Amino acid sequence: MDAVKILEIKQSVFANNDAQADALRRELKRKGIYLLNLMSSPGSGKTTTLTRLIESLKDDLQIGVMEADIDSDVDAKTIAATGARAIQLHTGGMCHLDAAMTRQGLEGLETEGLELVILENVGNLVCPAEFDTGAVKNAMILSVPEGHDKPLKYPLMFQVCDTVIINKIDVMPYFDFDLEKCSEYIHMRNPNARIFPISARTGQGVEALSAWLKEEVNAWKGDNL
Amino acid sequence: MDAVKILEIKQSVFANNDAQADALRRELKRKGIYLLNLMSSPGSGKTTTLTRLIESLKDDLQIGVMEADIDSDVDAKTIAATGARAIQLHTGGMCHLDAAMTRQGLEGLETEGLELVILENVGNLVCPAEFDTGAVKNAMILSVPEGHDKPLKYPLMFQVCDTVIINKIDVMPYFDFDLEKCSEYIHMRNPNARIFPISARTGQGVEALSAWLKEEVNAWKGDNL
Repeated sequence: MDAVKILEIKQSVFANNDAQADALRRELKRKGIYLLNLMSSPGSGKTTTLTRLIESLKDDLQIGVMEADIDSDVDAKTIAATGARAIQLHTGGMCHLDAAMTRQGLEGLETEGLELVILENVGNLVCPAEFDTGAVKNAMILSVPEGHDKPLKYPLMFQVCDTVIINKIDVMPYFDFDLEKCSEYIHMRNPNARIFPISARTGQGVEALSAWLKEEVNAWKGDNL
Repeated sequence: MDAVKILEIKQSVFANNDAQADALRRELKRKGIYLLNLMSSPGSGKTTTLTRLIESLKDDLQIGVMEADIDSDVDAKTIAATGARAIQLHTGGMCHLDAAMTRQGLEGLETEGLELVILENVGNLVCPAEFDTGAVKNAMILSVPEGHDKPLKYPLMFQVCDTVIINKIDVMPYFDFDLEKCSEYIHMRNPNARIFPISARTGQGVEALSAWLKEEVNAWKGDNL
């Protein structure tokens, strides 16, 4: 497997992250690039979900992926093997990405020709929720083994996410996970949140998710004309 | 169920957390109180593991539990139902606890007569690893569905933990989890780490864990004499 580009991300010097995020979003709009900020706990299946999404979308969209990780480049290597343009962002122990760090990542990735860029944020339900990265939409993955009560315990994360992917539904029979209750708790935090139950392992539900994402990207580019 | 005391934790004003942590540890030593800092991802089963541990130890030890949570008091209520002294610490969105915050929690809990206090830290594999809470030992729970590669991705967490509890081993058949590889990765980060595979749901392996903790507490108090 080819070596993956690794970028050491530096902490932002900008005080006003919200302004930086808005500026980045406007720039992405001009360029017709849709940036999705994907967040989750460690081990929820972000990389496997991404691999499935890329497989499903790569004939229709030019896709890039930025893998934020404290250390290691295993995830970026997995993604690069799908044929998508991939870069590993090393955060040097930092617990989140802000807009300026995301911009560094996009420059390192080289977005020329890309239509969809997915930022795989640091595995953490707390800190990443506090920083606008400049993404068009925030999405998060909650996996069945984590339990249906997570929206009660990590309110901000569920509040800032427009889309919640419920992963690992193939193991639902082995866990006390109440999908109906979970959806109710998610909508307490964000009444407009879209919920996609999937199994990244078996592929179940991935089609609906990728159809939604494709629509999102096309709408974002279409508004451009 | 009785109402559980909820404490709003304030951010520390002390610059030197390490000195504060050492001072707290010395004070706990004088009082013969063993403080265990328990960390993990969201949904790894901290509260269920604690419930099992308390059931197993409550005839031998006076136990207190501090539940750090961004919001909600569901965990502290569950713990209080076991008969252990419990307090809920609200961190107001903060992603970790430091020594001064832990001290506030201990004062709120009222440690008079307690021999073992367990701090259930914020569900997060990144930030809590960076702050010494003043605990005698750090322990963490990694659950099977999270994957055996987590020590590669969250190096500092596994480096600072003396004990790693591998939870949810009852669902091992449904996940690609390699216990041998996981142990190897854990020992790459901390060669002295003790590993306890358990299922908090079925109770498997909990006895060995509670025997170890009882020994720890008695050694800490015994050195006192």
